Amino acid sequence: MLNFEFKNPTKLIFGTGKIAQLAQEIPADARVLLLYGGGSIKTNGIYDQVKAALASYDIVEFGGIPANPEYEVLLQALSVIKEQSITYLLAVGGGSVIDGTKFLASAAYYTGPEPWDILSQSIRTEHGMPFGTVLTLPATGSEMNSGAVITRAETQEKRSMGGPGLFPAFSILDPQVVRSVPQRQLANGITDAFTHVLEQYMTYPVGARLQDRFAESIMQTLIEIAPVIMQNPADTDAAGDFMYCCTMALNGLIQKGVPTDWAVHAMGHELTALYNIDHARTLAIIAPSHYRYNFRTKREKLTQYGQRVWGLTGPPEEVAIRAIGRTEEFFHSLDIKTKLSQYTENYEGTAERIEERFTERGWLGLGEHKSLTPQDVRTIVEMSY
Amino acid sequence: MLNFEFKNPTKLIFGTGKIAQLAQEIPADARVLLLYGGGSIKTNGIYDQVKAALASYDIVEFGGIPANPEYEVLLQALSVIKEQSITYLLAVGGGSVIDGTKFLASAAYYTGPEPWDILSQSIRTEHGMPFGTVLTLPATGSEMNSGAVITRAETQEKRSMGGPGLFPAFSILDPQVVRSVPQRQLANGITDAFTHVLEQYMTYPVGARLQDRFAESIMQTLIEIAPVIMQNPADTDAAGDFMYCCTMALNGLIQKGVPTDWAVHAMGHELTALYNIDHARTLAIIAPSHYRYNFRTKREKLTQYGQRVWGLTGPPEEVAIRAIGRTEEFFHSLDIKTKLSQYTENYEGTAERIEERFTERGWLGLGEHKSLTPQDVRTIVEMSY
Repeated sequence: MLNFEFKNPTKLIFGTGKIAQLAQEIPADARVLLLYGGGSIKTNGIYDQVKAALASYDIVEFGGIPANPEYEVLLQALSVIKEQSITYLLAVGGGSVIDGTKFLASAAYYTGPEPWDILSQSIRTEHGMPFGTVLTLPATGSEMNSGAVITRAETQEKRSMGGPGLFPAFSILDPQVVRSVPQRQLANGITDAFTHVLEQYMTYPVGARLQDRFAESIMQTLIEIAPVIMQNPADTDAAGDFMYCCTMALNGLIQKGVPTDWAVHAMGHELTALYNIDHARTLAIIAPSHYRYNFRTKREKLTQYGQRVWGLTGPPEEVAIRAIGRTEEFFHSLDIKTKLSQYTENYEGTAERIEERFTERGWLGLGEHKSLTPQDVRTIVEMSY
Repeated sequence: MLNFEFKNPTKLIFGTGKIAQLAQEIPADARVLLLYGGGSIKTNGIYDQVKAALASYDIVEFGGIPANPEYEVLLQALSVIKEQSITYLLAVGGGSVIDGTKFLASAAYYTGPEPWDILSQSIRTEHGMPFGTVLTLPATGSEMNSGAVITRAETQEKRSMGGPGLFPAFSILDPQVVRSVPQRQLANGITDAFTHVLEQYMTYPVGARLQDRFAESIMQTLIEIAPVIMQNPADTDAAGDFMYCCTMALNGLIQKGVPTDWAVHAMGHELTALYNIDHARTLAIIAPSHYRYNFRTKREKLTQYGQRVWGLTGPPEEVAIRAIGRTEEFFHSLDIKTKLSQYTENYEGTAERIEERFTERGWLGLGEHKSLTPQDVRTIVEMSY
């Protein structure tokens, strides 16, 4: 096992009807900015539950945070925070709203000239404005971690940020919210969480037996509940397991003490920036090619994954190869397509373009060995056409 | 899954050589009370590492905290805290030293007439004196939870306490400490952690698929590393997995959202109080009889455990029965005896005596259904002779 430090102070509040508990979690004298996305919370009843729970609070609202939270939109929210003397943020939404809220929690206390610096200069947030979340869309795990990914349309960039000051004070997970999530988003959520686990698992063995098994546990559970959830998102047990898997997939637990990859995300982010493909789908496009291209360095973990998660038997090398196929089939079972050409007709030249963008940005090497070059990336993206 | 809240703010610092990092974790102006047990840390080098790391601090020492931390001894430490105006506690030891330190963290701020009230009246500690730990003996998980068990020799009692104010600020887990742990304590640690998992798992299914798999992961890992550790505690990988399993077995993670039992502990504590049998060994004595006696209510989980953890196949009922036997064999493989008569010749009458003690104390019901009566307890203890 590698050395590690783990601290995650977020209070997780899980259960049906738990949104009503909001007022116990936010200081009574807080001036709250309620942040949300496209407004679906106003039709599915969550908005009403939140407002009822916070009836005694001084609340300002900011809706319209888009998927892949956009810097320019967030700057508008930042003005509201300053003009209205906001002291507490409440994100009601999925990963995009929560990530956007984390940016605001950081930017609200940032004293530099331009908030984009937090992202472009990788400034770690030690202290941010306190915030909580009500999760409406299980997927990213942002509700229990201290990281965020922000998009800047102007430059077609997605950049990440983080720091110990960006853990939510609390996150409410009510499995009833899952019933109003559209099929497409359910499939995205399962795919996103599954790939998060792969990024922290599909590397090379370091004798971290428990972390490996925890990672496998999350994947096994996602595989088990996926058909249940897709057919009946009102199945409260499966919905709860789904939410909890998404949270545990990226709250730091399974990444501690093991090497992590994240090359699939790095490449996937480029596809979203270029073609606006759903984040989760970009991961499903890249992951299989990435594992095939890096088969030699990932072989042992691919075999372990095939054996333990998919129950495959046979010669190790064969199990490893078949495990990649089973992963693709799993994505297909969710109606997630795994080739770039199934999302855009204009895919030609994408690989070269991404190679160029990575090269321009100053290359540090991708993957668990930091060894993948822009040329490797080009090949992997080409294999994903 | 049942509703739950989960928050664990302890910072875990894992790795070889991490004791040197102590000074980064304790405020520079702290007046530190260094607490330890029988003094083995002075022969195995850990004491020297701690002193070197804290060379610039103002440190007072209190050694001699016994296994099953004793109230009278802790009262002496409490006097030191008050006389010396201590502001920070540092536990260097195993579960007993850490539990004793938690009592002191609570008692230091307690304003009532008699600190034993914290235990006898189940007073929850919302705010305690800050403390950190250097774990020297993996077993109890106390290094990452907010509970403690304290013994009072005078009345032959073991009582528990806890509260959000009793999470360690940090805990340092250096796998190198495992090499100086005696065989007997290694066996105890593995047995203790394994039984902690059983207490939170061997109940009835509630559709908490991920918690079940996490629990099974810990047990599978303990089974895998047990022979390695017993033969060579200097195997750093296995030692690290062992430490991490013990921590994860009782840091709140696997108990959230599921029913828990803890009847084995309740009965085991009595055996320690009466005969001074090692805590872990009392669990190994009670657990098999407890599962046989409560077979009907625990059957489904026993079967799942047999299938997933021990890889047993066959008719469910048979798998469940054999799973109990495999658990006993596992304890035997660690040279842990599983019958009370193997520990004391004076076992006759124990069952009646424990029945009486529970009845006197005011009975609330034991186990996940709160349905076990003192009479049930008597039978289970008799089955354990």
